[in-house]
Amino acid sequence: MKIDSVDFFYLAMPKVTTEADGSQDALVVRVSAGGHVGWGECEAAPLPSIAAFVCPMSHGACRPVADSVLGETLNGPDDIHRMTATVAYNSMDLLQAAHTWSGIEMAMWDLLGHVRGVPTWKLLGYDAAYPKIPYASVLFGTTPQGTLERAREMRGRGFRAAKFGWAPFGASLESDIAHLDAAREGLGPDGILLIDAGQIFNEDVEAAALRLDAMERNRVTFFEEPFHGSAYGAYGKLSARVKTVKTAGGEAAHNRHMAEHLIDFGKVGYVQIDCGRIGGLWPAKQVADYAVKRGVTYINHTFTSNLALSASMQPFAGLKDHRICEYPTTLKQLAVDLTRNHIVPDKNGEIHVPDAPGLGIEVNPAALTQYAQDVEIKVNGKVLFQSVRSV
Amino acid sequence: MKIDSVDFFYLAMPKVTTEADGSQDALVVRVSAGGHVGWGECEAAPLPSIAAFVCPMSHGACRPVADSVLGETLNGPDDIHRMTATVAYNSMDLLQAAHTWSGIEMAMWDLLGHVRGVPTWKLLGYDAAYPKIPYASVLFGTTPQGTLERAREMRGRGFRAAKFGWAPFGASLESDIAHLDAAREGLGPDGILLIDAGQIFNEDVEAAALRLDAMERNRVTFFEEPFHGSAYGAYGKLSARVKTVKTAGGEAAHNRHMAEHLIDFGKVGYVQIDCGRIGGLWPAKQVADYAVKRGVTYINHTFTSNLALSASMQPFAGLKDHRICEYPTTLKQLAVDLTRNHIVPDKNGEIHVPDAPGLGIEVNPAALTQYAQDVEIKVNGKVLFQSVRSV
Repeated sequence: MKIDSVDFFYLAMPKVTTEADGSQDALVVRVSAGGHVGWGECEAAPLPSIAAFVCPMSHGACRPVADSVLGETLNGPDDIHRMTATVAYNSMDLLQAAHTWSGIEMAMWDLLGHVRGVPTWKLLGYDAAYPKIPYASVLFGTTPQGTLERAREMRGRGFRAAKFGWAPFGASLESDIAHLDAAREGLGPDGILLIDAGQIFNEDVEAAALRLDAMERNRVTFFEEPFHGSAYGAYGKLSARVKTVKTAGGEAAHNRHMAEHLIDFGKVGYVQIDCGRIGGLWPAKQVADYAVKRGVTYINHTFTSNLALSASMQPFAGLKDHRICEYPTTLKQLAVDLTRNHIVPDKNGEIHVPDAPGLGIEVNPAALTQYAQDVEIKVNGKVLFQSVRSV
Repeated sequence: MKIDSVDFFYLAMPKVTTEADGSQDALVVRVSAGGHVGWGECEAAPLPSIAAFVCPMSHGACRPVADSVLGETLNGPDDIHRMTATVAYNSMDLLQAAHTWSGIEMAMWDLLGHVRGVPTWKLLGYDAAYPKIPYASVLFGTTPQGTLERAREMRGRGFRAAKFGWAPFGASLESDIAHLDAAREGLGPDGILLIDAGQIFNEDVEAAALRLDAMERNRVTFFEEPFHGSAYGAYGKLSARVKTVKTAGGEAAHNRHMAEHLIDFGKVGYVQIDCGRIGGLWPAKQVADYAVKRGVTYINHTFTSNLALSASMQPFAGLKDHRICEYPTTLKQLAVDLTRNHIVPDKNGEIHVPDAPGLGIEVNPAALTQYAQDVEIKVNGKVLFQSVRSV
């Protein structure tokens, strides 16, 4: 099959706010080859990601992503690997390329799964897929009381695990302790409690360490992204000071190496990969293999649609002992509407990667129209990108 | 002073080819504040970098760079540091932001230098600037004979050092050895010979190591970027196997951490920083300080105009013992025309960072018009970016 087209759909809610909620917009990718289509989603700023696909070449090592994709052959995983290498080399100096490529690569695995009639996780090399314990991924309340209520709500909805993240965490030690206590109280004594600091401590190990006592006391399972995603030194120092809580990170990794370094040098206990950023499913699968070897637990990072959720489950679907799974529960309507089917917890409170061809998620064409952002990019009078006007 | 505007000038040669020559286009940045202007240059794909400045917000941690800059106060270095932190945090999920910010930050140091009447290197904390030995930075010839002639030409032009890079290096061991021998022959026995593999070995340590004998024999000073910029493990393994030649890398670093990791984990002997990618002058200065502490030699990475060259010299201008300096010698006409003054070797074959306010380089308005690429970006009918039509 020849890759005939790659279409980008930039979707957004009518109003986008400064809250740290990644489901307020989306960049959905459709790859067409040989009469088949596959869907993917970049977890990335849509406009720069589109620009990285269509931009004029700067030089041989700074070419648009399109040059490594359009017209290429796609008959099997080896073709994806070949294109991965081409993008990495020919777009070496185009920083945004990794985010753009992520959604395209994902769509190619979806497409191949449809062609072969098998779930993508089988194409990635797994024989079986195991259920995951979804953790409700929510933002902290603005007050400890708000956090308490949100935790109670998640427990009431049957979640055995919940992660609280971002502001106001980091504002003050006293407030942070109050939020940690509130989260534990609301979740109940048996809930798996996870905390996401959203890089608020930058690389200040002492500031992050001040929160450890309250985390240990509240039996927090992991302490996510205390620092800048590349500050492996800070991660390593904090990791050496924890008792029961483990450090976690990795969502910023835009290639496999970065995630592996966070394991080797940052000594994280949990490595969290966003397939919409790291370059798609295959580098994520490689990180999962690496994590197993190093005794580290792999988890997805997902804060967008169920298309992205299914994609993010594929690389560790077959890892029976890597049990917890990020599961966004306060998605904006756009992210809900984007897919016709949804991944929902079963009666045991567990979720299952779709046992259907490809990613097993059906994109809803109506959402692509309803939330469409109309983009036009022109250089020297030539239209390099124009949003698809009808789906 | 309040930052009134940030203007981007996307320039390009009439024809851009796949050769690994970064001077075929340019993204020049003009920052205006309080009636003063400063100039910078991103070493980046222009269109995605512009998009990262003007794109709609995706969420609180994925905001356009403009949001952290326009209308902000700029009275001194502390204001630059503050904006650096804001961009890093508020554009955390916008990968291209680091490249966009690099040119802006550079322009702010230029502007502050003009306001205070001092060279930027003084603002960065140096009392004196020392001359550098420029190495002619050229591509390999297509044949060993071509490399020989290019090396002779550089020697004839008075260069005491030259770096040969990119294709066809890596094509075959036999060819690589022939090119290495040719480069040494052409440069003469006393010339400082440097090699840039342009990441061709990805992470194949054995393949890179096969070239070491011929490098040692030809007294190559450093072996640059054998591997993917993030493959610290591969760098570390090769660094452990060299005898006299040292490994070099760092141009891919888009934050200070990445360069420091290449020192700590990749064990490079030379760290090469592009101020147009790492986030501007201050993170580069921090890497220079770090390199000194670790006994590593700092070098600029520059393959564009003399505006970028001056900028890239500032962070290590005061390091007397860090002697060699990348000096592009086959610049495309656009990069030559971009500045009214140029940094040229003196009678000793050394170059000097300008001893003039700011970066000490005067941008040529005619070039901004002559090579202008006309860009228009619209989202939902609203023009988010339109090239400046007159300078």
